[in-house]
Amino acid sequence: MPDLARGAAVIGQSGGPTAVINQSLVGVVQGLRAAGAGAPGNPITRVLGMRHAVRGLTHDQLVDLTDIPDDRLERLAAAPSAGLGSTRDKPDAEYCQRIFAACEKHDIRYFFYVGGNDSSDTCRIVNELANKAGYELRCFHVPKTVDNDLVLSDHTPGFPSAARFVATACRADALDNASIPGIKINVIMGRHAGFLTAASALARQGDDTGPHLIYVPEVAFDTERFVQDVAKVYDRLGYCQIAVSEGIQDDKGESIGAALIKDGQADAHGNVQLSGSGALGDALSDLLKSKLKPAGGKPPRVRADTFGYLQRCWPDASPVDAIEARGVGRFAAALATSGDVDGSVAIGRVASPESGQPYAATYRRVELSDIAAKTRHMPPEFIDGTNNVSDAFIRYCEPLTGPIVPLERL
Amino acid sequence: MPDLARGAAVIGQSGGPTAVINQSLVGVVQGLRAAGAGAPGNPITRVLGMRHAVRGLTHDQLVDLTDIPDDRLERLAAAPSAGLGSTRDKPDAEYCQRIFAACEKHDIRYFFYVGGNDSSDTCRIVNELANKAGYELRCFHVPKTVDNDLVLSDHTPGFPSAARFVATACRADALDNASIPGIKINVIMGRHAGFLTAASALARQGDDTGPHLIYVPEVAFDTERFVQDVAKVYDRLGYCQIAVSEGIQDDKGESIGAALIKDGQADAHGNVQLSGSGALGDALSDLLKSKLKPAGGKPPRVRADTFGYLQRCWPDASPVDAIEARGVGRFAAALATSGDVDGSVAIGRVASPESGQPYAATYRRVELSDIAAKTRHMPPEFIDGTNNVSDAFIRYCEPLTGPIVPLERL
Repeated sequence: MPDLARGAAVIGQSGGPTAVINQSLVGVVQGLRAAGAGAPGNPITRVLGMRHAVRGLTHDQLVDLTDIPDDRLERLAAAPSAGLGSTRDKPDAEYCQRIFAACEKHDIRYFFYVGGNDSSDTCRIVNELANKAGYELRCFHVPKTVDNDLVLSDHTPGFPSAARFVATACRADALDNASIPGIKINVIMGRHAGFLTAASALARQGDDTGPHLIYVPEVAFDTERFVQDVAKVYDRLGYCQIAVSEGIQDDKGESIGAALIKDGQADAHGNVQLSGSGALGDALSDLLKSKLKPAGGKPPRVRADTFGYLQRCWPDASPVDAIEARGVGRFAAALATSGDVDGSVAIGRVASPESGQPYAATYRRVELSDIAAKTRHMPPEFIDGTNNVSDAFIRYCEPLTGPIVPLERL
Repeated sequence: MPDLARGAAVIGQSGGPTAVINQSLVGVVQGLRAAGAGAPGNPITRVLGMRHAVRGLTHDQLVDLTDIPDDRLERLAAAPSAGLGSTRDKPDAEYCQRIFAACEKHDIRYFFYVGGNDSSDTCRIVNELANKAGYELRCFHVPKTVDNDLVLSDHTPGFPSAARFVATACRADALDNASIPGIKINVIMGRHAGFLTAASALARQGDDTGPHLIYVPEVAFDTERFVQDVAKVYDRLGYCQIAVSEGIQDDKGESIGAALIKDGQADAHGNVQLSGSGALGDALSDLLKSKLKPAGGKPPRVRADTFGYLQRCWPDASPVDAIEARGVGRFAAALATSGDVDGSVAIGRVASPESGQPYAATYRRVELSDIAAKTRHMPPEFIDGTNNVSDAFIRYCEPLTGPIVPLERL
């Protein structure tokens, strides 16, 4: 082992939990223990967990994970939600100072933070503060987000499991909607990136099964065109299933959802809260009922479901996701014990989805500053027109979710 | 085989689909084929399916199931939603006349209708019309409803699978909500009966895990008391998970949801449409935000999910439910081939949940008129106070859903 600073390692989980964020926690713990953390003479003296992320760290709420039994770790890894607790706090410069002070106070030399792009920014700032103070602190961001919106990565842990839920839900719901015909809207998570909504396409079982229309934030949403799209499918089939991102926006970049949510509650990140509200789905539903009502007739049957938090916590993780979320945690631990580096972990793909080769992932270190606070969007080649995704997206996504249960129809 | 009328059998699936309604369809088809239906000389000449229930029957939209391959039947049985298609039509006397006329036209002598209490009433009326006309028509209602609200039955096919989804969802969501603490409302199906909402109690993993509060339609909902209940849990734990039925009503029997849904759309059954709308959850969420906002402070984090149609179509049926839904279909087919009877099928329990004996079900014939258009409610012994269910309910429900996946916490 190279010459490493002597002190504790600390791990936190930040932002919205996922079905596999505990896999990453366990990956870091196992990786550090495999390198001898906690053993006499090892530079990594203890492995600590932050209760509710940096909020707990700055309030001395730490839990010692150095000797947690392996069987308990394995059970924890299989459970959704953030085992250590999470937070929505987005630290500013002053908050990061307190984080750094807490690291000094608890003799922390290894800082692991599992989260999205906000979390990587926190790592970057804390790392810079430590550098400035001449305090040796290795900072590692471990990627996590169901939105799949981190740059430099082929995909991010958490996304494949959420995509698996969305595709399974849409497939079952498509049968339900075809059996008792009507117009069905499913509102799917993803404020800025449409990957999760796009994953609904994996629900399709041959022609004319839902979702018939898919709307992602990357394509400007036009209300009139939306009504026409739905009318066209409904007239042809007598039913229509629609997948729509909570983050759809108009051609000026204004959120359709935010405009419709009268009492929008902004969270600490300055984002309007669309998750945890049925407002967008109900508003689109009302729109279709009024616009598609025949003169003198009854409006069509229109229903909306907002999939909500089950997307990120449903306890049936994608097998690939479970393995990779563990893997990025172990990779970050290996970086920490390899010497004088900081960084985040990006997932790559050994061969492109177009190559015909079986799916296999690679991990690599990337600079914190290269991903911090940046957002990745659906690339144009994953989008087909204004209401669908491309075959290239499906080839990209299929290996990540694993097979979606086939459902027979008559 | 007794002296049976010679003619076709027809099967329909009515009302909201479930995860196991195709099991019942397959049970009837297999039962009739086992009795020789379609074989030369057998009184049951063909096995027909109604497309979209009585709507298809009265429009000559029938599909011949006599020779459908067994492997396809098995795959169909495992799929949620109504394979034949369903309808929300609730036939009146004139519509029942048309149903009867269609039976005469297609030489139908065996009428099977899988559905809830509205469907059993349709069976009853069609049966009476046939009797009056001196036309031999055996009518069988095969029970189905996620609401579990048919009288004379211990429980109804469809409920255990929906309860399994609700309990699994609430268990995962409870971890999610505890990890990023706030107030979380989950709105659960059940217009008149609270069984499905009550099943959320199976999510609990020891003390203080959610759901902390459960509100069923059988207990008058008091808005002030609700706010106090939530405040009490939230003050103690820092978070609170709530399960609430879409059908909660005040002490005058007025629906809390209906009052809150401004543009409520009534379906053909005269029921206000609460499923497929996020309005109740969002309204309760707004209520809590305003009432629990500290003077000069920020409102607590409150989110609402409406579980919606996934409750009835999620493709992970309870094993007990899958077996019993098939079983009631086969039992109805056995009744039909046993002679001059009509009726519905009720599920009983060999030994009470309090006996300590392992769970086992029995089927028996009940009169159509004894269950038609009647609604069963949660009995008082299943309710504990104003915001919880009893241990007796949990003992009743646990064998039906099968084990809910254990989720480890730190």
